[in-house]
Amino acid sequence: IKAGERLKVLAAIRRWPPADILSLFVAMRSKYARRLLEWMPDEMGIAVLAELDPRLHAVLAEEETRSTFRKLIEKMSPDEAFPLLDALPHGYALDLLEGHPHAKELRAALEVHEDLAAAHMRRGLLTAREGGTVGEVIADIRASADEIEQLGRVYVVDDAGRLKGVVRRRDLLMNPDATPISAIMQTDPVVVTAETDQEDVLALAKAQRIHNLAVVDADGVLLGGITPRELRQIADEEAEEDALLMGGVSPGATHFDSPLQIVRRRLPWILGGLVGASVAASVIGSYEDALTEAAILASFIPVVMATAGNVGIQASTMSIQAIGQGMTWKGDFLWRLGREVAASLVNGLVVGTVVACLVLLVSAFIEIGNAPSLALTCVLSLTLVTVIAGTFGSLIPFVLRAMKLDPAVATGIFITTSNDVFGVLIFFSIASAFYL
Amino acid sequence: IKAGERLKVLAAIRRWPPADILSLFVAMRSKYARRLLEWMPDEMGIAVLAELDPRLHAVLAEEETRSTFRKLIEKMSPDEAFPLLDALPHGYALDLLEGHPHAKELRAALEVHEDLAAAHMRRGLLTAREGGTVGEVIADIRASADEIEQLGRVYVVDDAGRLKGVVRRRDLLMNPDATPISAIMQTDPVVVTAETDQEDVLALAKAQRIHNLAVVDADGVLLGGITPRELRQIADEEAEEDALLMGGVSPGATHFDSPLQIVRRRLPWILGGLVGASVAASVIGSYEDALTEAAILASFIPVVMATAGNVGIQASTMSIQAIGQGMTWKGDFLWRLGREVAASLVNGLVVGTVVACLVLLVSAFIEIGNAPSLALTCVLSLTLVTVIAGTFGSLIPFVLRAMKLDPAVATGIFITTSNDVFGVLIFFSIASAFYL
Repeated sequence: IKAGERLKVLAAIRRWPPADILSLFVAMRSKYARRLLEWMPDEMGIAVLAELDPRLHAVLAEEETRSTFRKLIEKMSPDEAFPLLDALPHGYALDLLEGHPHAKELRAALEVHEDLAAAHMRRGLLTAREGGTVGEVIADIRASADEIEQLGRVYVVDDAGRLKGVVRRRDLLMNPDATPISAIMQTDPVVVTAETDQEDVLALAKAQRIHNLAVVDADGVLLGGITPRELRQIADEEAEEDALLMGGVSPGATHFDSPLQIVRRRLPWILGGLVGASVAASVIGSYEDALTEAAILASFIPVVMATAGNVGIQASTMSIQAIGQGMTWKGDFLWRLGREVAASLVNGLVVGTVVACLVLLVSAFIEIGNAPSLALTCVLSLTLVTVIAGTFGSLIPFVLRAMKLDPAVATGIFITTSNDVFGVLIFFSIASAFYL
Repeated sequence: IKAGERLKVLAAIRRWPPADILSLFVAMRSKYARRLLEWMPDEMGIAVLAELDPRLHAVLAEEETRSTFRKLIEKMSPDEAFPLLDALPHGYALDLLEGHPHAKELRAALEVHEDLAAAHMRRGLLTAREGGTVGEVIADIRASADEIEQLGRVYVVDDAGRLKGVVRRRDLLMNPDATPISAIMQTDPVVVTAETDQEDVLALAKAQRIHNLAVVDADGVLLGGITPRELRQIADEEAEEDALLMGGVSPGATHFDSPLQIVRRRLPWILGGLVGASVAASVIGSYEDALTEAAILASFIPVVMATAGNVGIQASTMSIQAIGQGMTWKGDFLWRLGREVAASLVNGLVVGTVVACLVLLVSAFIEIGNAPSLALTCVLSLTLVTVIAGTFGSLIPFVLRAMKLDPAVATGIFITTSNDVFGVLIFFSIASAFYL
């Protein structure tokens, strides 16, 4: 259907809510999505673009759609256009700004490092003077209703533009018209500067359980605000970064990376894992004589490695979550560690016993020299490996945090490989003592 | 200091903001925290409890503080008390409700399954009649200001209590007093029922980009609302669950689990990993003769397993994130997969070459039979293993999603162990062909 009949298609989707058009876009091949965007009347195009996940803009903004994009962005307010441009590759965004009425302002905003509060700041906030009353502020809002895009809190400033307080919408609605603003405003609002790192903005908002922060300059002059929507966006970005780190991918990876970018973001982690694996390999190499004598020992390498790795990841996942939730209650730290160790001991004994039974079972069918000793080796080594992996796994995130490193790097590659080395070392030591 | 001098301590913290008292609590040993809570005047205790992370309530609510808790909860409104009670073990919460003025209502709410919309619903919403005007609604709000705890949207209902529309606070502030409510209300508000699963509530809110949902019964009668705060709470819970699944811990794990609960939530995953490891072990076992001939091959097991595991986790992390962000643009799926494969090929060649060089280097010092063939084996097998692990790692989350399973279970234990088997199999096949 999408092979030319513009009017029919537009008639069909004219009354759809933007969210549905969005789903259509996502389900279409990008070639058709681009054509549809070109066909759309401007208001519809703007509505859809604003709804669209920023990461999809990059797909749409191919060479051929450039003029459609430029046209749409010129019709948007700077606050609307900024997030769209920000999601595009930098050079491309600057190119789109050619001839834009707010080109200078937007270009300056795009130059701001994206991790700073300034990049998430909403300008054009509603302000009021300290001397006014509730009725006057409401009258002001109504008079300028046409220009207001988003009505959040009302910021109270003095003559120099310095922030004095904040009035919530609920307080405007709940108090009589004659109430003076100074009586209902919250003084000492939580503020950040434009240079505050977004991670600190988020931490501050979480610690204070607030969803609106004012951005001020060094003199306390109000520059803008960070609203719940922006806070959510920052939280999403940070969570994404953590998930990537835990999976061993350097932050900043997107789904549009070229193969070379993919290599750059992942190879260092793989090579890091290789270092650990080489140590494990040399441990195994040092038991070459033992292996020549009893090659069956090699079969237990994956069992020991998988168990140590899994136990370590489980324990560190819980610790990372505890840190993320601010659950660093010192009072019961030892108590929690004790439960962790006790649980690891039980898990290790179960896993060791299961493997030992498997060994005895297999020895009934296949010739295995000295099967009871091998079973004993399995119980002992798997229990010890599990306890050590569980203990280290739950401690390392806290150690990294104390060293001011991101605990998320602790899981995945880091924990797994270090546990591999321990696991193999413990297994072969115990095997040498009890089996050979 | 906290060994008896109640008045001094209270005088010192009397003027602190609740967030700071909170930090103090978290830093204290739980014994002292409990004593401090007992000492506090009621208003202060309630403020601190309400700020406190719900998971910390469980620590505070030991036997000795039970009467303090009961006293504080009796003074709270049902909406305030519910989340606190909900965070406590079920039996304990019911016990605290003895003699509570709203015991029956709260007990019923606690019985609701915590994954349903009803468990997150806020009651006592502000409602208005369709016939009114902006001025009348504001006058109503002001008249009942004392009873309003949280002022969100105003829900418009008919005489039977059926939901007709929603009025945002901004529209009340931005429109003249004489505007009829019916002119500014949003009709067809997004609704869910009390039995809707919280996951569906979240998905709906995300798809529609809204932060407030109304909860209605089968007749469309308004029961309550889900506010941004509750949505955030649901999103946090779901993210937590995903992180746990990816780390191989069954959902529902808390930091207060007993060792036995820890075992129950983790052991099944470890045993699942053991199944995969046993397959890998039997693959190695089937090459026992080769290993007896050249025990050095065992040294490469951790190298192959670590590389396959890490590459697989990286690729699946990206795919899971793409799914989570709704980035399932069918148009460029093949294109994305192609880049993934190309990048894996490069990564594999680099890792293989590095290991081959190490082998040649080590063979200069230690006797390794036929080192060039061994180096060739490393390049070939590591490249092949990386490409396969990368391809499967990025596909499996999409396959699981198509099978309506949670893609988060794909990483961690599942991907790692299946890659272990592939990796070992590929390595020993290539080694048999080229090295032995």
